[in-house]
Amino acid sequence: MNAPEPGLPMVVPADGLPARVRIHEVGARDGLQNEKATVPAEVKAEFIRRLAATGLTTIEATSFVHPKWVPQLADAEQLFPAVADLPVDLPVLVPNERGLDRALALGARRVAVFASATESFAKANLNRTVDEALAMFEPVVARAKDAEGVHVRGYLSMCFGDPWEGAVPVEQVVKVCRALLEMGCDELSLGDTIGVATPGHVSALLTALAEAGVPVSALGVHFHDTYGQALSNTYAALRHGVTTVDASAGGLGGCPYAKSATGNLATEDLVWMLRGLGIDTGVDLGSLVATSVWMAAHLGRPSPSRTVRALAGSGADSHKEQ
Amino acid sequence: MNAPEPGLPMVVPADGLPARVRIHEVGARDGLQNEKATVPAEVKAEFIRRLAATGLTTIEATSFVHPKWVPQLADAEQLFPAVADLPVDLPVLVPNERGLDRALALGARRVAVFASATESFAKANLNRTVDEALAMFEPVVARAKDAEGVHVRGYLSMCFGDPWEGAVPVEQVVKVCRALLEMGCDELSLGDTIGVATPGHVSALLTALAEAGVPVSALGVHFHDTYGQALSNTYAALRHGVTTVDASAGGLGGCPYAKSATGNLATEDLVWMLRGLGIDTGVDLGSLVATSVWMAAHLGRPSPSRTVRALAGSGADSHKEQ
Repeated sequence: MNAPEPGLPMVVPADGLPARVRIHEVGARDGLQNEKATVPAEVKAEFIRRLAATGLTTIEATSFVHPKWVPQLADAEQLFPAVADLPVDLPVLVPNERGLDRALALGARRVAVFASATESFAKANLNRTVDEALAMFEPVVARAKDAEGVHVRGYLSMCFGDPWEGAVPVEQVVKVCRALLEMGCDELSLGDTIGVATPGHVSALLTALAEAGVPVSALGVHFHDTYGQALSNTYAALRHGVTTVDASAGGLGGCPYAKSATGNLATEDLVWMLRGLGIDTGVDLGSLVATSVWMAAHLGRPSPSRTVRALAGSGADSHKEQ
Repeated sequence: MNAPEPGLPMVVPADGLPARVRIHEVGARDGLQNEKATVPAEVKAEFIRRLAATGLTTIEATSFVHPKWVPQLADAEQLFPAVADLPVDLPVLVPNERGLDRALALGARRVAVFASATESFAKANLNRTVDEALAMFEPVVARAKDAEGVHVRGYLSMCFGDPWEGAVPVEQVVKVCRALLEMGCDELSLGDTIGVATPGHVSALLTALAEAGVPVSALGVHFHDTYGQALSNTYAALRHGVTTVDASAGGLGGCPYAKSATGNLATEDLVWMLRGLGIDTGVDLGSLVATSVWMAAHLGRPSPSRTVRALAGSGADSHKEQ
């Protein structure tokens, strides 16, 4: 056991975990997309620059969806060139070929499509069946792969529970995962969109995917903290060898129930656990906390990340809840 | 996988976990002790009655410390008889022989002493060395054991990190654990008082205790959520066979940094995970959430438990943060 540095956990590795984890930071896209108020493009760009300075290497920048769907990200054409010089990966979401064209025209080298494991959410989010959505993504992925060196991530929503359908059968998730990989996706992100999963369910899905021949290196996990389960589920996933974990700086990402409750797993809480486990992320926790405090000040409310609150000290105090 | 009931997780057991966990509910004592305002004894009694009705079987009721130390619990003589008829275990804290006398006079059948794994905290909390504190507890435990059928819990603070000393060596914790068990304690509660532990550290301590011959059945875990790590640490402890977990309804228990940030692991978040893992607790989650919403209304601020916020719906909305 090492002596702790101030504001850092003691390091006590656990057996059988990966040596390094890549954090896929989604705060600037998934987090800000859920803000009621649109954050100015220059603030978003500064946020991404500060995130890159913390040591994060994969920072999802924006989404090339139609502005009428997500007005908060309508500035993608302005934002992306403002951060494209950063020495980090800057994935962007592309819903269709038009979005892909826009992203590639700006030089994006990592794109992501977003599918659903359930019919109900495919209908609600994309107004298509699961198969129709996959058919829509097929030319997007194919054309991205034709553009040499472009990396494609496939987001998969509702991998555990669905608000309309309840528990989602593991076989159903495996089927859509295989379809996305066969289509050419380099990486999948398994989303617990409504935050209902628990560690046994995570293990069951990862076991089924391994049995179906899906390499764990192609899998990322994307947990939501709606019921406080995101970090336990992440720990369960690490035990299966997962090395890509999605998280949102400061826990950005709206929750319908309480202004400061979190949707996404907070990157700081994740970094605390990974650092304690001796798993390298390359991220400077103090710098990340400072970045989230800065963003919270811009948004006018405290970060829901427990680690940010604990480490921000008087900075956190300046954003009192009442 | 079972179909989910509304407001409950899907049940997917994981291998190697216990079939049943006993939750040691500390909200009425550890939670309310940290409130600035003293809660009236009749409200505390009603809280304990409601907690018992949820299916919780061990509800820490109060502390027989000197009122000048913890004025919030100065009503122990009034409170304990008001709940003593409940068909649940009602442990109480006793700091010394005087406290034990007061507790036994009221018919308490479960008492707890509270030791420290570190010299710094023993000095700060008890104004004694670790050994002096143990010497103080020795006659308390001996006399409690003489009173036939009285069960003694030994709380051990700072089992992972200490704000003055940093990382706490595992051997030091094992030594104090053994002393408490040899003194006659029936059960220990391993406290991460400042919330800094991560799962590898939890595994290391539980492994060392097993190697020292301490039966896991004598161990409980008491994690704090200061850095969002409490539930992951609990999951790590379950994997070592721990079946007693301390938690606080609604996450009651103050945090110095933010009004609604939590100190203690929220019982609801724990129950969500255990239920998802197929581990029986006997607790009705909906009833527990309703109890925490009721208590939050009394305290005038929302519960920090994510599960309470997610499930309370319009009840939670009535306690908006701004």
